[in-house]
Amino acid sequence: MGLIVIRYGEIALKGKNRWYFVKQLRKNIRDCLKKNDITGEVRSVGQRVYVQVEEVEPALRQAQDKAVEKLRDVFGVVSLSPAREVPADIEAIGAEALRVAQRAGVDEKRTFRVQSRRADKAFPLISPEINRLVGAHVQKATGAQVDLSNEADLTIGVEVRRGHALVFGQTVAGHGGLPLGTEGRAVALMSGGIDSPVAAWLIMKRGCGVIPIHFRQSEEELAKFMDNCEVLSRYAYGWDIRPIVLDHQEVFGETYEKLRRVGAGRWACIFCKRALLQEACLIADQHKAKALVTGDSLGQVASQTLDNLEATSYGVEKPILRPLIGLDKTEITALARRIGTFEVSTREARSCPYLPPDPLTKASLPKLRAVMEKMKGCQPIGDE
Amino acid sequence: MGLIVIRYGEIALKGKNRWYFVKQLRKNIRDCLKKNDITGEVRSVGQRVYVQVEEVEPALRQAQDKAVEKLRDVFGVVSLSPAREVPADIEAIGAEALRVAQRAGVDEKRTFRVQSRRADKAFPLISPEINRLVGAHVQKATGAQVDLSNEADLTIGVEVRRGHALVFGQTVAGHGGLPLGTEGRAVALMSGGIDSPVAAWLIMKRGCGVIPIHFRQSEEELAKFMDNCEVLSRYAYGWDIRPIVLDHQEVFGETYEKLRRVGAGRWACIFCKRALLQEACLIADQHKAKALVTGDSLGQVASQTLDNLEATSYGVEKPILRPLIGLDKTEITALARRIGTFEVSTREARSCPYLPPDPLTKASLPKLRAVMEKMKGCQPIGDE
Repeated sequence: MGLIVIRYGEIALKGKNRWYFVKQLRKNIRDCLKKNDITGEVRSVGQRVYVQVEEVEPALRQAQDKAVEKLRDVFGVVSLSPAREVPADIEAIGAEALRVAQRAGVDEKRTFRVQSRRADKAFPLISPEINRLVGAHVQKATGAQVDLSNEADLTIGVEVRRGHALVFGQTVAGHGGLPLGTEGRAVALMSGGIDSPVAAWLIMKRGCGVIPIHFRQSEEELAKFMDNCEVLSRYAYGWDIRPIVLDHQEVFGETYEKLRRVGAGRWACIFCKRALLQEACLIADQHKAKALVTGDSLGQVASQTLDNLEATSYGVEKPILRPLIGLDKTEITALARRIGTFEVSTREARSCPYLPPDPLTKASLPKLRAVMEKMKGCQPIGDE
Repeated sequence: MGLIVIRYGEIALKGKNRWYFVKQLRKNIRDCLKKNDITGEVRSVGQRVYVQVEEVEPALRQAQDKAVEKLRDVFGVVSLSPAREVPADIEAIGAEALRVAQRAGVDEKRTFRVQSRRADKAFPLISPEINRLVGAHVQKATGAQVDLSNEADLTIGVEVRRGHALVFGQTVAGHGGLPLGTEGRAVALMSGGIDSPVAAWLIMKRGCGVIPIHFRQSEEELAKFMDNCEVLSRYAYGWDIRPIVLDHQEVFGETYEKLRRVGAGRWACIFCKRALLQEACLIADQHKAKALVTGDSLGQVASQTLDNLEATSYGVEKPILRPLIGLDKTEITALARRIGTFEVSTREARSCPYLPPDPLTKASLPKLRAVMEKMKGCQPIGDE
């Protein structure tokens, strides 16, 4: 039996809500296994989740590796280790530790250390004693040097629990966050660009199911949006990404025409964003979503000045979550690469047909209201 | 003359607005020098800002070091290097490069590399030739090995410009972002805790001047707030941090009393946050600030569920910027340590006197409206 031990961090701090979070985490881990055709059993042991991958050698390590690769993308997972379960017995632990060291190719020229954790306080040896005994056993058999620093070539982990112990030689980082599904749902406005999928991912990471919505302008941009939804799906365990596509022209076309007629073409981006946010609110209500998510980053482009943020979000009823608001473009790009959306987002596509040559950067609420007033007097198209 | 060369990244992308940003950056650099009693001259040279520190040896290097340490905290600065200006002449460059290598203690056992950039395309040698010639000169004199990888013990930088060249052996990272003052101003709600000062800092990093506002509950918490404002001031070049303190009891006391009377004590945190946000809006209007900043992080504590965010921000007229909304506690804590607010924020203080034993985590707008309706019927205190 191949075992994977999963650590969750922040969840452990959640006091009496903790079990609710851990239950959702286990559910999402099961969803991950299922979506990736991995057969396995999931259970809580102390402050860990164990995933037992049910395959036998020689396919075992392959199944374990695949499971680790997929499970690291479950939000709420801080780190995970493929491990072996042995009796809670210092000899059995030592033997398994040696096997781990040998498999990792440790010899006289390499260094290692043992880090143990005694979750079962009834175990007769305390952690430093376990480290010393297991370390001596591995050292004697391999000739390798002990190095207690982070520089060691191999760190052998040991966790002693009631009735069993875990031994592992590898710890893989997860993304952290909270289990998806614990923080309700939000509608994420997504173009085909770099920022908005990163914003959606960050909000998913905080446990919130996102409903991506796209306002179609061109087939290329739509394809980028759909492909980015596909990438987000790789993290959507415990949640299904169901993209919604609306027609941009239908949502904004008439307003744009009016803007042009009253000579306020420079306001196009602001009224466009307002129209999209209002439309997103309606969609949110239909889907019981409590908030909107945008890729706004303060000052990144002309339309994202503070003045314009105030004008675009004025009167929008739902809270707007802007997880990128304090990040630099370099930071956002690094995240996009890590998530896997960068390649898709940087594909060539036509730019927005409504983009004015000189978009307004300093909207103000009084000016906004004045333009809205003028537009009221404007006849709808076809009534002339 | 000691020279510091400053690189800005994102600003360079800003098209025709670029000069506006660079001008503000120079202004803020001057403010930084002034606030730290450093005498120096600031000017743009190509896509760089040069700061000339006007002191002579032996005090020179000290003044240069101090200037580098302070200037790295100016937002918009991506990196900076203490440098020497020499004639744009390969022999002079080689001689200065050797001096840099010797000062860094390079010898036969150490490695180095030369990385040059030819901003003046009229210079007769191209970059790889400069690297080779300067490298050969340093190698011959010191016996050190050339290592072109990132592993080199020393990287000697050369920038050739019209009429002069810069040579440097050190590149210090700044925080990036945009020059403070280019993105208007916002009111930042700050407790004495870990999150809110980090949120304020991130928004300052994006060029926005923040006005910190605190609702006093206890002297300890107030002192933490004031100390954190002091820390933020270390980054506030081009902006002055002017803390505003209001009395929490005055802002929320009456509402709390009403809540208790109608048996809705569990709603305390939500109505408190609503009251603070509303009050912050008034302050924002008085100070021409366009937005509010909070330290909300989704799901971090009971009061920061998506339901509660919706209820607390419902009807708040200004956009609420929540730069931490997508971050984990570990990420926020790491930022607090980097900024220097962590020590202050983790000092002991009394917890909020209004905190109910079982605060509501699932507010909804209909329930919120129902409680508000009940409270309307409630007599003000003293009228009984």
